[in-house]
Amino acid sequence: MSFKKITTIDIDYFIQILGTEKVLTDDENRSRCASDHTEDFHFKPELVLQAETAEEIAAILSYCNEQNIPVTPRGAGTGLSGGALPLFGGVSLDMRRMNKIIHLDTENFQVTVEPGMITEVLQNAVKEKGLFYPPDPASKGSCFIGGNIAENSGGPRAVKYGVVKDYVLNLEVVMPNGDIMWTGANVLKNATGYNLTQLIVGSEGTLCVVTKIVLRLIPAVQNDLLLLVPFRNAGEACKAVNAICMAGITPSALEFMERDALECAIQYYQSSAVTLPDDIQAHLLIELDGNYLEQLYKEAEKIAEIVAQYDIDEILFADTAEQKQSLWKLRRIVGEAVKGNSMYKEEDTVVPRAELPQLLECVKLIGKKYGFKSVCYGHAGDGNLHVNIVKGDMSDDDWNNTLPIGIREIFTEVVKLGGTISGEHGIGLVQKSYLDIAFSQQQLALMQSIKYLFDPKGILNPGKIFVA
Amino acid sequence: MSFKKITTIDIDYFIQILGTEKVLTDDENRSRCASDHTEDFHFKPELVLQAETAEEIAAILSYCNEQNIPVTPRGAGTGLSGGALPLFGGVSLDMRRMNKIIHLDTENFQVTVEPGMITEVLQNAVKEKGLFYPPDPASKGSCFIGGNIAENSGGPRAVKYGVVKDYVLNLEVVMPNGDIMWTGANVLKNATGYNLTQLIVGSEGTLCVVTKIVLRLIPAVQNDLLLLVPFRNAGEACKAVNAICMAGITPSALEFMERDALECAIQYYQSSAVTLPDDIQAHLLIELDGNYLEQLYKEAEKIAEIVAQYDIDEILFADTAEQKQSLWKLRRIVGEAVKGNSMYKEEDTVVPRAELPQLLECVKLIGKKYGFKSVCYGHAGDGNLHVNIVKGDMSDDDWNNTLPIGIREIFTEVVKLGGTISGEHGIGLVQKSYLDIAFSQQQLALMQSIKYLFDPKGILNPGKIFVA
Repeated sequence: MSFKKITTIDIDYFIQILGTEKVLTDDENRSRCASDHTEDFHFKPELVLQAETAEEIAAILSYCNEQNIPVTPRGAGTGLSGGALPLFGGVSLDMRRMNKIIHLDTENFQVTVEPGMITEVLQNAVKEKGLFYPPDPASKGSCFIGGNIAENSGGPRAVKYGVVKDYVLNLEVVMPNGDIMWTGANVLKNATGYNLTQLIVGSEGTLCVVTKIVLRLIPAVQNDLLLLVPFRNAGEACKAVNAICMAGITPSALEFMERDALECAIQYYQSSAVTLPDDIQAHLLIELDGNYLEQLYKEAEKIAEIVAQYDIDEILFADTAEQKQSLWKLRRIVGEAVKGNSMYKEEDTVVPRAELPQLLECVKLIGKKYGFKSVCYGHAGDGNLHVNIVKGDMSDDDWNNTLPIGIREIFTEVVKLGGTISGEHGIGLVQKSYLDIAFSQQQLALMQSIKYLFDPKGILNPGKIFVA
Repeated sequence: MSFKKITTIDIDYFIQILGTEKVLTDDENRSRCASDHTEDFHFKPELVLQAETAEEIAAILSYCNEQNIPVTPRGAGTGLSGGALPLFGGVSLDMRRMNKIIHLDTENFQVTVEPGMITEVLQNAVKEKGLFYPPDPASKGSCFIGGNIAENSGGPRAVKYGVVKDYVLNLEVVMPNGDIMWTGANVLKNATGYNLTQLIVGSEGTLCVVTKIVLRLIPAVQNDLLLLVPFRNAGEACKAVNAICMAGITPSALEFMERDALECAIQYYQSSAVTLPDDIQAHLLIELDGNYLEQLYKEAEKIAEIVAQYDIDEILFADTAEQKQSLWKLRRIVGEAVKGNSMYKEEDTVVPRAELPQLLECVKLIGKKYGFKSVCYGHAGDGNLHVNIVKGDMSDDDWNNTLPIGIREIFTEVVKLGGTISGEHGIGLVQKSYLDIAFSQQQLALMQSIKYLFDPKGILNPGKIFVA
């Protein structure tokens, strides 16, 4: 791909349409927008633009489209697949100024929000009105809802409540040619034309720029319970996940953490919330929620009976809100904590839930074969296992050349098990060279022709999802 | 659109690839495939083909694509927007032979099924294994699951459980050029490439032919309660719908029926399940389901308190399974019963739930203005109101020329209220001339370019969704 470099003429044009304060050429802002939470990548944009309206974005896109300048939309930069990295320089379209709730419709349980709002801020705002927006990526305290839409994010609650796509009713988008349009309607049922909304959710900023988001909400849930179950055998923890589901229980979270994952998190926070006996290989963190506490206790008892069939240590019932919070804090920091210890690569594998024990075994076997260590954890109730591969004392040569062969083997196995190569992080930059494992040439060609249809000149987030 | 007429050479070719028994040229089969449940349309196909495998369909499509012969996929023919009507003759692709469950995965709560299976047969098969497939269109006893995918069908339970699209994980499809591909993976979370699956759900057989469907299932629910609430004022019944939702209750069905709707159904079945005092204008049929009966009783009591604030007659609690069944039977037959009385047109309006009272009022006002009578009923909990316009003693001229102006006014109001022109029936043939109310020229152009991308020669279900 070859693009035009940005000139002072271009900058003058942007200043003219946006004003000086939204056109950032300084190194600090350009460096900030050069990376996200994906490994240690740095791709500095030539320019950072901060728009405030769909119309401003339309003006930016139509100009860049005409001038052949690449545009990479950027949320909070918490992505784990490199979606926000301006691979070819150009414009980093920083969405942080578009951070308002436009309309919280408490009658219809809907919210219209701009993409630059922090997910947790949105959750709290709707909670105040007795409403609930369930999707809760680990980075919810800092990530933007727009980034969640771009990557079709998940999080622990997906096992009961579904992922981001299940809450998106309608999107206002700006096309690369500057057209502004809505994709659907603000309704719960829609059989009117093609589902453009769902085509755009998870398209990683490669088709158009999302400028308004209409989400459906549900009534707030009154109670929850949290259990931490320590297993002496990690494979058994995976098996217990399915046993719980097979009993007809749908927890609001059903999380798996290998010993190393929890250990990293404990060290990171110097936490005393959990003790970690030597013989414990893995934990399940299980949350139940609902409006009838009595029912939750019954389900918790049933879960206790189920997990007692495996080799477990004592179950920790989190009694207080504080205790619950510290357990969740540990779970949420795992990714960052593992990253703090070593260079790492995170693979976002997902398989049908019952195949988890087999997936875990295969990850470890392939690790042994190629000499890498992995720390596994994730949303086991959905079959979504994050495999964090740590560099540790692996040589640079092995890390760069041998490891990709191992990762390819893992993904090949994942697909054989009926799964795919990203559950909730997206393909972005770091998984694109593995996409041929998940899709045939025909599937890839169809997806690329959709990309071309939306963005014929390829200016939007170039170099993502597809190899070329 | 101009297509090639089918010749004996074409028929010989089809016999060669399918065998004689699946190539039907007789008038009986062609007449059967000439209509569906939409008004009184008849468009006779030149030929009916019954394939049994994706490979056979690939052979049919690639031949027809090459020869420029139109192909209209056909499920059970219960559609209400004319999706299965072979507008330009050609091939009616009758899916009835592809009616098997390929794999019922009880471990992962998934089923892989062929499109020609009757929805209720599928529901019963998974129920036997303790699993639940919620979407339940009124025609569930005869419609095919493939048709449900094509139209993104809903049904009463959508208010709690969502519509068909919320259960589709993966599709095997045949493209017009004969390519066979899967659209996704059999997983609950997927952030791998564009969501082709959701683009195809609801595309009304215009993009490709679905040959296998992977649905997610949920654990079976143990109990349900059913209440019928008679209102003396229809507008108040609509308002009560929102009041129930605002109380944080999510019924598994929340159905509205105008007096005339229920009356037609009672007459149709000569039913004595419900008496209909003269002063009753509308009913709400409310179902609650869950695993804890005690909780359901509490919610039913709460609902009784809420509706008591309106001018209602005595609530009917359905005590026995038989009583529940007869109420549901009445609700399900409304469409057919209304149709039995007079020529009619059914408009499948949907608005944000709280706008229902306003929608009902506007439908009646527009009816008065243009002199038509409407019978309204539907899935009020989703804001999905079926407006059955009966011809009664309207002149043919008014029916053909004035009524469309009135319908256009209704749809314009629906869109103003934040809604759209089809909630669950699709656009098909009968709503396509109103699509410009829901979408701008840019949106329509984008959708049509997607159609062109999948089906460049326009052989798949021509004349549907788009005017030209």
